[in-house]
Amino acid sequence: MNSDSQSFGRELAAGYCDALLGAPAHGQGRLDVVADTVPAMTASGRYRWLAGLLGTLFLLVGVQGVKADEGMWLFNDLPVKQLEERYGFTPDQVWADKLMRACVRFNSGGSASFVSSNGLVLTNHHVGAETLHKLSTPERNVYDDGFLAKTWDQELPAPDLELNQLISIEDVTARVNDGITADLAPAAALAKRRENIAAIEQASLDETGLRSDVVTLFGGGKYHLYRYKKYTDVRLVFSPEAAIAFFGGDADNFEYPRYCLDACIFRVYEDGKPAHTPDFLKWSDNGPADGELVFVAGNPGRTSRIFTNEALKYQRDHRMPYVLDFLRRREVMLQQFGLAGPEQARRAQDDLFGVQNSRKAYMGMLGGLQDPAVMADKAKRQAALMAAIQADPQLQPAIAAFQTIADIQQQRAATLRTSLSMNSQVFGLVHSIVQMVTEDKKPSGSRLPAYRDSARESLERRLFSDAPLYPDLEQAVLADLLARLCETRGGDDPLCQQVLAGLSPIERARVVISGTKMFDPAARRQLAADGAEAAAESSDPLVQLAWQLDPELRVQTETTEAWAEQERQAYALIADALFATQGDSTYPDATFTLRLAFGTVKGYDEDGQWVPPMTTMADTFAHQERHAGEEAFQLPQSWIDNRHKIDPATPFNFVATPDIIGGNSGSPVVNQDLELVGLIFDGNIQSLVADFMYTDKQGRCTSVHSSAIRQALRWFYDAEELAESLGR
Amino acid sequence: MNSDSQSFGRELAAGYCDALLGAPAHGQGRLDVVADTVPAMTASGRYRWLAGLLGTLFLLVGVQGVKADEGMWLFNDLPVKQLEERYGFTPDQVWADKLMRACVRFNSGGSASFVSSNGLVLTNHHVGAETLHKLSTPERNVYDDGFLAKTWDQELPAPDLELNQLISIEDVTARVNDGITADLAPAAALAKRRENIAAIEQASLDETGLRSDVVTLFGGGKYHLYRYKKYTDVRLVFSPEAAIAFFGGDADNFEYPRYCLDACIFRVYEDGKPAHTPDFLKWSDNGPADGELVFVAGNPGRTSRIFTNEALKYQRDHRMPYVLDFLRRREVMLQQFGLAGPEQARRAQDDLFGVQNSRKAYMGMLGGLQDPAVMADKAKRQAALMAAIQADPQLQPAIAAFQTIADIQQQRAATLRTSLSMNSQVFGLVHSIVQMVTEDKKPSGSRLPAYRDSARESLERRLFSDAPLYPDLEQAVLADLLARLCETRGGDDPLCQQVLAGLSPIERARVVISGTKMFDPAARRQLAADGAEAAAESSDPLVQLAWQLDPELRVQTETTEAWAEQERQAYALIADALFATQGDSTYPDATFTLRLAFGTVKGYDEDGQWVPPMTTMADTFAHQERHAGEEAFQLPQSWIDNRHKIDPATPFNFVATPDIIGGNSGSPVVNQDLELVGLIFDGNIQSLVADFMYTDKQGRCTSVHSSAIRQALRWFYDAEELAESLGR
Repeated sequence: MNSDSQSFGRELAAGYCDALLGAPAHGQGRLDVVADTVPAMTASGRYRWLAGLLGTLFLLVGVQGVKADEGMWLFNDLPVKQLEERYGFTPDQVWADKLMRACVRFNSGGSASFVSSNGLVLTNHHVGAETLHKLSTPERNVYDDGFLAKTWDQELPAPDLELNQLISIEDVTARVNDGITADLAPAAALAKRRENIAAIEQASLDETGLRSDVVTLFGGGKYHLYRYKKYTDVRLVFSPEAAIAFFGGDADNFEYPRYCLDACIFRVYEDGKPAHTPDFLKWSDNGPADGELVFVAGNPGRTSRIFTNEALKYQRDHRMPYVLDFLRRREVMLQQFGLAGPEQARRAQDDLFGVQNSRKAYMGMLGGLQDPAVMADKAKRQAALMAAIQADPQLQPAIAAFQTIADIQQQRAATLRTSLSMNSQVFGLVHSIVQMVTEDKKPSGSRLPAYRDSARESLERRLFSDAPLYPDLEQAVLADLLARLCETRGGDDPLCQQVLAGLSPIERARVVISGTKMFDPAARRQLAADGAEAAAESSDPLVQLAWQLDPELRVQTETTEAWAEQERQAYALIADALFATQGDSTYPDATFTLRLAFGTVKGYDEDGQWVPPMTTMADTFAHQERHAGEEAFQLPQSWIDNRHKIDPATPFNFVATPDIIGGNSGSPVVNQDLELVGLIFDGNIQSLVADFMYTDKQGRCTSVHSSAIRQALRWFYDAEELAESLGR
Repeated sequence: MNSDSQSFGRELAAGYCDALLGAPAHGQGRLDVVADTVPAMTASGRYRWLAGLLGTLFLLVGVQGVKADEGMWLFNDLPVKQLEERYGFTPDQVWADKLMRACVRFNSGGSASFVSSNGLVLTNHHVGAETLHKLSTPERNVYDDGFLAKTWDQELPAPDLELNQLISIEDVTARVNDGITADLAPAAALAKRRENIAAIEQASLDETGLRSDVVTLFGGGKYHLYRYKKYTDVRLVFSPEAAIAFFGGDADNFEYPRYCLDACIFRVYEDGKPAHTPDFLKWSDNGPADGELVFVAGNPGRTSRIFTNEALKYQRDHRMPYVLDFLRRREVMLQQFGLAGPEQARRAQDDLFGVQNSRKAYMGMLGGLQDPAVMADKAKRQAALMAAIQADPQLQPAIAAFQTIADIQQQRAATLRTSLSMNSQVFGLVHSIVQMVTEDKKPSGSRLPAYRDSARESLERRLFSDAPLYPDLEQAVLADLLARLCETRGGDDPLCQQVLAGLSPIERARVVISGTKMFDPAARRQLAADGAEAAAESSDPLVQLAWQLDPELRVQTETTEAWAEQERQAYALIADALFATQGDSTYPDATFTLRLAFGTVKGYDEDGQWVPPMTTMADTFAHQERHAGEEAFQLPQSWIDNRHKIDPATPFNFVATPDIIGGNSGSPVVNQDLELVGLIFDGNIQSLVADFMYTDKQGRCTSVHSSAIRQALRWFYDAEELAESLGR
């Protein structure tokens, strides 16, 4: 694991151990599932894709040169030259700072922006989905039926949501590398670097009171300290019905043309009152024109554009097929669970959407890698780089680096299918506590990154959250995980036998879940308070299960971290070679930190047909009629009843060329005047290969048009006041 | 492959290569998917589970002794003693012959019976499903909406259905073993036995004109010649709506209590007129009483009760997880395909039901094997047998036999995940033709069993059938199979690269499917007629694909057959030891041939609650109300409109203890007087372990009550005449 990613990763895991579960449902919020050999079992939890499942390398994009509208640029190193040359636009520091502070990160895995001076936050319905589900009950289904607070006191507090506003970026590379010499062994270097990072983060937190994360960029070439203002009192103001937020369902997901109001609005509070948020985005009256230059500011989760051929082949031939098997398994399991009745379906819904979204995204990515032409192109670029390296005596170390990376892929492939994976919410919480009480015996800097003091507040918010956990669903999940353990290890495996304790997986899961008290946040708090010795002697069957699995899970974590450190050093050498041969005016791979992308509103050619960049309100009703009788294409009653009010030509969704990826969901799309013209919610299927390469041939990001959001509030939701307050 | 199973297997494959696809949808019609290392790629096709995916061993049941109502008994060796002792009932030869000739086998994978003197055949809606789908069009959805022919001329001819009526059984063990000596190598023995079997079948066909299959019993201890009268003009008379045939859908599948009218009625014709069928079952007026002795006569597909511990562990740790991965993958793929629109959903429906049914069945079976107590029990029994073997010098060869079987499991496990699997309907047809024209160069007895002369008529019926094939669905299936090939072999695999020809799996599938002419039966007929040389030079991309894959598929077939022959010999030695130590009054493992099972109508205890054996019509409407709003629990309009007509106390479904398994779907349940009292359509989840062991603790078979069928025809379908003609 990359330590910087862990330092935010630990924050993200509202659903811990659920890289798979409770995902940002669809669109760009695609997420990862199971780690390489440590399958989502550290406290970095559900959004560990952010942390680097592909090997944790956040490095510069270099095997190809940067071109066209490519790039996820750092806010302290904007692509000024490219913008001037391509578009004659020169952003200054005031422009950049204003936009930076108007942006909001959802630590549950997405992006957002301030859209009023009194704390209104705009994001996607699917980014808010986890909270919408947590706010739902059998009687009040906020997710399905939508919600509107007419007054401040009707706004619904989210149980455990943390939003971050980026305040400053500081280069701390020298401090992170302090004491690390070339002759230091990888393990020692990792430990020292971890210690330095912990100290920097703690000092910054003590000094500023701000959340302070050290982020690894360029594979260790640079380390930046990101300071965030945290908002933890977040309340729901508005969400539309799921039927229009996710209109077209799984069928339309990642497709275009689209017709989705994938938006919802929260408000941040301080001291019990709406927060004062002077750095907000104004609202564009007309939205963007076809061909207009636009910017996307958000938190792309992870890209892997530096990957070597061997690393890509590991993805193509091993990890992605493995993850897809896991996703399909969970998808079928959740569907089966939901068949028991409407309430069970509701409980499984958030997870199911997340899994289906991920499955479709992975299919798209794998499809790209399985195209021989794509891999041939990559191989050609790598061969050219290798030739340049071989021609320059100074760059020789990079040759061994390629081999190191290849070797590590082989080791990963050899252990992948027998690795331990326990993607269960309640197990994850309990296992985190068990690890935490053990790690707490060490000084903060020596602990696994998730358990450092600087991360404690956010960790505890998650571990002791009173967000709903459903024992019936958790039991079905655990039964499936135990069955999977038996399948991957074989039923005679000693760990498998120990865990089953003589029972079948189904029966064992029943005993554990019906016997545990850990669904109660107070019991989890008590477990943590009692400390390691008491936890080791707990008679709670779920705590016992966590102890049984912990030794092996720790070994997996350590092995993965060791590989990651070796790769970090190897990619740093390759990065040096790239800088040397191709210059350094580029951007690092994505790290779920704030980035700027740019491009234009633009249609594309598909199967010989031109796909225009914008859809309209009128198209939306036509789309429903084309799919009459299909559940996913049934518009909500509010739209049907108020159809007469609409201006049919109002734009609804649009596509553009900026370079985005999962994590960008909810990002504002702004024009040169920093007016909000759109809201990112998806990328088309042709864009999914963006993990590995940018393409604007057909690849596009998909947004809700600003006019559609404001007008929908008026026409369908009787929310004139809220519509008026946007951008003010 | 076991040669006898191939000899009927080749007949069964209306959907060739589709062990997975187009399954008998739910209930007992569970089916297998992908073979051990030859994944459904020989002409034995879709129901190759019948042929012995688990290793092709059809042997006696012996590691435990026979007890209670256990047993799938041969009609020429009925359990007279057991019936006398337990129930004081003595079946005579007249009784047995009458029942045998009243039974009908659906070669598409199920059982049935004659229920009138003029050719009416009763089976399950899900056994008929494949035909119902083939008879459906976008305008007339026979499967969903039901069908009733009011007159003979309205009856709908099935495109390619073959029904078999068993006429006689003859022991041909000595003739099969003619020329096979103890010193013959396995490969030579296999070849010689295959040659003998081909000769016996051909001679019988020439002599009697009847379909003649040699069936391997007791793992090669006995060979019986089964002669069948074939009916190939089969017409649909009645089917209810899918909504009541499969009421409760995937949620209720394999569950009890149940409420399904899983029945449909065909009629066999000869010379264009309804056939005269004097051996039919009378219809019971009242059905069975609680506790009454009943019999089930049908064609259980395959059991594996002889399996050694090592063979079971291979199933538990390797094959079943592998098959489940495949099933989930196909399930998700078919669901995704169906999202494109109602017509796509209709096209995928039959396959999807089959896959979901198989997935649930496999989950049940695997769950049983993952129970440590179950495996411990098996181990104990095997240890006792081993002790007896070690104590008897004459039985020593059995010790090596256990080791041989263990070794083969290891070889299977080592190659399973990289084996080639091409479960596509149209590919399967074309590949069969390619193999056929090649095999036809050899004398009949030396060919792969599927291509022997005696099997040709049925094979051609399948290969040249004009049953609908859907290019869009086939394209999606092929794209997924090509992607899977890349995943299991790695994208750099030479075969993978050759097959993709520089394109991505999706694009390659598009090129192959849009370029082939093989969707046209006439083109397939021409391909076969032109012979091997012409086929080898074909410019049709699908034919070329079949040629590319054929060499490796052949190697897989040969390897699997060699393993099967070694196992056959090993299990024969173990069988000898069992006969020697436990006597020979027992039954062989199932072989998709006619068997008799017996037992009583009986409820069971579940979670401390007594589940009564029968449900009623009134319960059915109550069940709908409990699941209001769920699609799978929506009764059809015919039931809602005519609810006032019913007698609420009329029994609907019932459970009983007879020993059945997949393939028994559609079997008649009869009383001592040979009156039809029920129609088997499912087993509960607790019965699924029946592949490996019989249990009547909770395991039950599930039937439609005879009164429910007759009364439903009257109340809901206005089919008084048909109701009256049943049993006459």
